[in-house]
Amino acid sequence: MLELQSGYVEAVIERALQEDIGACDWTTVALIPPDTRTECTILSQAEGVLCGVQIAQRVFQRLDAAIEFCESLHDGDLLTPGACVLRLRGRTRAILMGERTALNFLQRLSGIATLTRRFVDAVEGTGARIADTRKTTPGLRLLEKYAVRVGGGVNHRVGLYDGILIKDNHLLALGGDMHEAVRRARAHAPHTLKVEVECATLEQVQQAIEAGADTLLLDNMPLDTLREAVRLAKGRVRLIEASGGVNLQNVRAIAETGVDLISVGMITHSAPILPMHLEF
Amino acid sequence: MLELQSGYVEAVIERALQEDIGACDWTTVALIPPDTRTECTILSQAEGVLCGVQIAQRVFQRLDAAIEFCESLHDGDLLTPGACVLRLRGRTRAILMGERTALNFLQRLSGIATLTRRFVDAVEGTGARIADTRKTTPGLRLLEKYAVRVGGGVNHRVGLYDGILIKDNHLLALGGDMHEAVRRARAHAPHTLKVEVECATLEQVQQAIEAGADTLLLDNMPLDTLREAVRLAKGRVRLIEASGGVNLQNVRAIAETGVDLISVGMITHSAPILPMHLEF
Amino acid sequence: MLELQSGYVEAVIERALQEDIGACDWTTVALIPPDTRTECTILSQAEGVLCGVQIAQRVFQRLDAAIEFCESLHDGDLLTPGACVLRLRGRTRAILMGERTALNFLQRLSGIATLTRRFVDAVEGTGARIADTRKTTPGLRLLEKYAVRVGGGVNHRVGLYDGILIKDNHLLALGGDMHEAVRRARAHAPHTLKVEVECATLEQVQQAIEAGADTLLLDNMPLDTLREAVRLAKGRVRLIEASGGVNLQNVRAIAETGVDLISVGMITHSAPILPMHLEF
Amino acid sequence: MLELQSGYVEAVIERALQEDIGACDWTTVALIPPDTRTECTILSQAEGVLCGVQIAQRVFQRLDAAIEFCESLHDGDLLTPGACVLRLRGRTRAILMGERTALNFLQRLSGIATLTRRFVDAVEGTGARIADTRKTTPGLRLLEKYAVRVGGGVNHRVGLYDGILIKDNHLLALGGDMHEAVRRARAHAPHTLKVEVECATLEQVQQAIEAGADTLLLDNMPLDTLREAVRLAKGRVRLIEASGGVNLQNVRAIAETGVDLISVGMITHSAPILPMHLEF
Amino acid sequence: MLELQSGYVEAVIERALQEDIGACDWTTVALIPPDTRTECTILSQAEGVLCGVQIAQRVFQRLDAAIEFCESLHDGDLLTPGACVLRLRGRTRAILMGERTALNFLQRLSGIATLTRRFVDAVEGTGARIADTRKTTPGLRLLEKYAVRVGGGVNHRVGLYDGILIKDNHLLALGGDMHEAVRRARAHAPHTLKVEVECATLEQVQQAIEAGADTLLLDNMPLDTLREAVRLAKGRVRLIEASGGVNLQNVRAIAETGVDLISVGMITHSAPILPMHLEF
Amino acid sequence: MLELQSGYVEAVIERALQEDIGACDWTTVALIPPDTRTECTILSQAEGVLCGVQIAQRVFQRLDAAIEFCESLHDGDLLTPGACVLRLRGRTRAILMGERTALNFLQRLSGIATLTRRFVDAVEGTGARIADTRKTTPGLRLLEKYAVRVGGGVNHRVGLYDGILIKDNHLLALGGDMHEAVRRARAHAPHTLKVEVECATLEQVQQAIEAGADTLLLDNMPLDTLREAVRLAKGRVRLIEASGGVNLQNVRAIAETGVDLISVGMITHSAPILPMHLEF
Repeated sequence: MLELQSGYVEAVIERALQEDIGACDWTTVALIPPDTRTECTILSQAEGVLCGVQIAQRVFQRLDAAIEFCESLHDGDLLTPGACVLRLRGRTRAILMGERTALNFLQRLSGIATLTRRFVDAVEGTGARIADTRKTTPGLRLLEKYAVRVGGGVNHRVGLYDGILIKDNHLLALGGDMHEAVRRARAHAPHTLKVEVECATLEQVQQAIEAGADTLLLDNMPLDTLREAVRLAKGRVRLIEASGGVNLQNVRAIAETGVDLISVGMITHSAPILPMHLEF
Repeated sequence: MLELQSGYVEAVIERALQEDIGACDWTTVALIPPDTRTECTILSQAEGVLCGVQIAQRVFQRLDAAIEFCESLHDGDLLTPGACVLRLRGRTRAILMGERTALNFLQRLSGIATLTRRFVDAVEGTGARIADTRKTTPGLRLLEKYAVRVGGGVNHRVGLYDGILIKDNHLLALGGDMHEAVRRARAHAPHTLKVEVECATLEQVQQAIEAGADTLLLDNMPLDTLREAVRLAKGRVRLIEASGGVNLQNVRAIAETGVDLISVGMITHSAPILPMHLEF
Repeated sequence: MLELQSGYVEAVIERALQEDIGACDWTTVALIPPDTRTECTILSQAEGVLCGVQIAQRVFQRLDAAIEFCESLHDGDLLTPGACVLRLRGRTRAILMGERTALNFLQRLSGIATLTRRFVDAVEGTGARIADTRKTTPGLRLLEKYAVRVGGGVNHRVGLYDGILIKDNHLLALGGDMHEAVRRARAHAPHTLKVEVECATLEQVQQAIEAGADTLLLDNMPLDTLREAVRLAKGRVRLIEASGGVNLQNVRAIAETGVDLISVGMITHSAPILPMHLEF
Repeated sequence: MLELQSGYVEAVIERALQEDIGACDWTTVALIPPDTRTECTILSQAEGVLCGVQIAQRVFQRLDAAIEFCESLHDGDLLTPGACVLRLRGRTRAILMGERTALNFLQRLSGIATLTRRFVDAVEGTGARIADTRKTTPGLRLLEKYAVRVGGGVNHRVGLYDGILIKDNHLLALGGDMHEAVRRARAHAPHTLKVEVECATLEQVQQAIEAGADTLLLDNMPLDTLREAVRLAKGRVRLIEASGGVNLQNVRAIAETGVDLISVGMITHSAPILPMHLEF
Repeated sequence: MLELQSGYVEAVIERALQEDIGACDWTTVALIPPDTRTECTILSQAEGVLCGVQIAQRVFQRLDAAIEFCESLHDGDLLTPGACVLRLRGRTRAILMGERTALNFLQRLSGIATLTRRFVDAVEGTGARIADTRKTTPGLRLLEKYAVRVGGGVNHRVGLYDGILIKDNHLLALGGDMHEAVRRARAHAPHTLKVEVECATLEQVQQAIEAGADTLLLDNMPLDTLREAVRLAKGRVRLIEASGGVNLQNVRAIAETGVDLISVGMITHSAPILPMHLEF
Repeated sequence: MLELQSGYVEAVIERALQEDIGACDWTTVALIPPDTRTECTILSQAEGVLCGVQIAQRVFQRLDAAIEFCESLHDGDLLTPGACVLRLRGRTRAILMGERTALNFLQRLSGIATLTRRFVDAVEGTGARIADTRKTTPGLRLLEKYAVRVGGGVNHRVGLYDGILIKDNHLLALGGDMHEAVRRARAHAPHTLKVEVECATLEQVQQAIEAGADTLLLDNMPLDTLREAVRLAKGRVRLIEASGGVNLQNVRAIAETGVDLISVGMITHSAPILPMHLEF
């Protein structure tokens, strides 16, 4: 799990377990003796991309340090209905107490990875990449952005701290002066961050290029305008991104305009889960 | 906000803000002077049920203690596209820094409330109620369960600690002895909790009734079996719940079998957001 | 320790150690070289029921991961004066630094288990069970309720979240309308929770039964009234509980009125410790 | 509340509220409308010394920032049965949700202050002072030590970090060499701490004086030995403390031996609560 | 304080206060009655740049919500010996308890701002800017980077998450293949981050330019090499940074080679404090 | 690491790692495969006293539980330029991610130990000891005070809670009445703490002795006055401390006046780091 900082991951899992178990899992404690052991399997119930299997393992390990994982797929593996995601052997109490929490992580993260992959597949061959947004679940952003990577997407900035994105509302406050906006951003922020400018019109595209923007975000443009904007900007900025109302129906047409990156809110904010269940 | 404990709510919001703002909102700090003030509006972009407006207010208040809310709808209000959810007046920096976090809460919670309401409407007049499950987003369960209530649903147990639910996997471990299972649950758990037993067959329904279950969870039964189970159990247990594969297409038919409660995982695990945006 | 969630237990222990050790155990660090090892024993100094031995072990393990427990009694075991509760071998510094914290947990939890057992013994054969209340030490409720179980008692609701208990003050706010109170509780709260109603008079008992209460809490009734209340309610509610001013002198008489459960505040709020000490 | 650091106090209260309220106070939320307001009173049910009234106020303020305290006694005030400790006016929901937590703090802290006062009264006129020990409830030490001060006692060291106390087990590890023990303590620990040595025999008293101990702890000595030890040590050390098996029966006799300080574990580890209740 | 997230700032201050006050400020509580009020002043004892005045104010406000600040300089103001930084009026206890913590923040942050300013002044007119590094005090990075900005410097990346910097050790692991290194960085990391490559030789400078690096970090180069590297790279990368062994003696010569940015570890890791004191 | 409480140490390290790594170490994750392993060395670049080697080890262990330390110096060892402080073998990713954090701890703590040692050496043979103050980095006090001990110094009180120090501002509030000040301190604070009084004049020295102070802090006295004060106080108090404007030039002269202890702010507040680096 060396891609995500373990302190963060452990804190997220601990919160999830406390939230679910709370005072006591009365049913399990009442019915199952402490030393009963069992073997069971987490099975996929649909097609998709697996994500979160190490998180699920940590959930169970926190409840039973001696749990064994006899078989395990890996993040990024393709799932088919009935695929065995993870086979566990350990204390029955620990497995029953961790089941729901482990599945909640697995299903949600795999849901995001799976939907991301569908967008990635839809633009295959166009050269465009699929990126996420900051429209994530409060408290789970790093995990959800990881799921996007597992699904074949790339991450846009993670938060307000690791990228500069000058939006319409910022420009409004400066009377629309794009040169001044870009100048201030470069003067104040770390030089390690690129300056991206959101453009809604071709005129803004022209201004942003002249103001020295590193990259452009073309927001909610019709396809024709998008194509024209790409023509204008190609070679004059480092990267052209499109966003706004992207879905599986229109994503390929957007990609074919020549943009480098398409950011899609719904891969994190509205991905349905990928169903799984645990069988004894 | 006296329905949710404020310590919990504040911690969830703080985590969300830290996750989004991190070291610095470089764009805003670079471009917007600290004392600039503005007025703006959060608008709905779809139909649905509003949820989370007090959360959104707290997000902005944490960033600017002097922010004013000139107009505000309330949780549970019906939204139409273009409806003004919240009008704010305060420091521009605070509004720009809080925008995404506030919208992430509002959109997700309203998405859950809205989908819940669609299920509630679908069973109107049947006497059945719509309940949630433990299939929630890790870390947000109390907020999501609150959104279900706002949408007109009821909460199933919140975690493993406030209800006894004897499932197939518990029974397996006892060799299927339902009497013993119910007996142990009553002996060990607080008397304030009802004992619910999951049944997959009519035979199990019969056994559960005889074992003295307070309530039954009829899991994944075909409609005919469900009707028969209701006939068997009505008046002999305190409540009959159905679950498993429930969707908007089949929920009314399930309700018409006479069950008291239908629990639906998708209202929390797969609700699409209700789109909103902030306009200056 | 699979009965209590380990994240909770570790946090409680960590707080206790920080509170006691703080900046440095100057005496131990000054006098004892870091590699000195020793063997020692925790001995009981009175009769009673042991509780907290795994907590004590975790205290020492946090200070010396390699500590060994050569001998150990178990929670629930009966203690006599001089009984060896736990024999340890490990770094002398760790043992001296953990001694007070480990004893503070052991003595308090064993004190609660011991007093609980005295109440349980006092009602033996009557069929009544002894339950705790929410009158616990702030911050230690889950541990103290665990000690009650170890002492042979049962837990009443753990907090305001896992049981419905309609008290006089709630009724006052509804003008005493018990039907409405019960109706509201059922409409709003999870169906997994029973509805218990506190009654101070026989008239209230009658009303509560008619309002459909699941269980009754007979508060501070004289024995005669209690008996009459039991006569009225037996078979018409799921459980009858008595509370109020219960002590070791009157508990058997109360039990003999036929109530199912007697809740006793003093087993948690005023239990004297069970004395123990650590000998090198 | 400037005597205890507010960050600590708020954290203790928040934990207590979360522990009691958890997911929701279902009874109160179901029965009481959010805007209902009420007035009520916390009454003492016994004689004693009040402690914790500001803690109780903060409990209610965290639940309703606008709550008013119309009347309030102060920490240290003497209580009689029926005395009005605190009169509140505010939201009914907040009062019902905070009631148990506020009372748990008040009753426990007043219990400690009350028992401390009884010991203080018992030694009146002898010149001896009553001190506490580290035998406190895990997690509540600063509050409990505050209660001892309110009851007229003084605090022994708060933890292992603010005093040096060389005990039998420390000496054992040094082969009983008291000179070396005192020398090491002085060399390693801050000079702001006195060096106290525990003595069980007159021989040890003599050695400790010669080793340069600042103060002596005479542990579990018979009265005769104690008197002799005081005779030996008076004027040669800064303070003489007695401890071990102290109770209300023997404390005056101990005080009359001429010791300066008597430390009593039971004022924190076994104080019964001082009963109070809240009346609408 | 809208430049730093308040949740972070409050947590840092709370930790500092707990660390200093702990169980009790015995001296102050013993000597000063709770209601005594006073007025006092924080005075500078040297020349420099002020930083941290809002932090100091929050320290006192946490101890006395009603404290008043009658006069206050602002972050970035130039200090002369004897200058009045902050005049306060409030409870004497709060002022005495907060004094050391407030001064610790003020002195350290002003020390950093002051040393930064000396470097900034030393390169005036050359066009080069002074940047910080990640060589900061563990736990205080955001405050220390803020102090650098206040002193007129700019921030390099804040952590490993908001900039890509390919160093010698990274290259070693790829057999020195700079093209591959840059390609991997662009493929994996958010497009909002620039790719900076550390170069120790002119050959590496040439390779980095060809590999498409956005910016170069010229590490520990002699002045002649530096000048040559600037000649090679100017106009072909977005920014040229120099680092390694920079001090007040050599910084201007480095700046005059034409680099855009000079990063200086000592402004955070070895800045002496700017002395201040509090006078009643 | 049995001298510092591990819970504290782990929390400090975790904060430092989160602060540096945050969302992701993009460079390392992009360039280095997860299973690559390497061996490397931390080398000293100057002379001094090593401190923090166990902290550095824990930093790496948190990132790679299987990391090996093939060679390691110990805290307190003397360093020469080029000395191998620590040799590690483990996952390359973990080493690169932890490098900066480990070095930040090592360099700062060794810097403090080294400067302390220079003061200790400067007073060698005089009998005076070097002590620290509360002028430490917020959040790192326990580590910094540990570094002082490693450098051969002793700790003054750690915070306001483990020592009584009556300063000019305290006296002002009592109208300068030193007898009353000492009396109040003794009456209120634990008897385990000595009472130290700050004196600026010989008259105050006289008063403090008469008031029964345990120890004196002679603040900012000229050498002549200091000598006279020592003459007055020697044998009449337990310890004489000097402070105020102490540096390496004047410390020996101060020591030769006969004071027992010299407290030096700069060893913690202005120690330059001891430079080290990590080589593959």
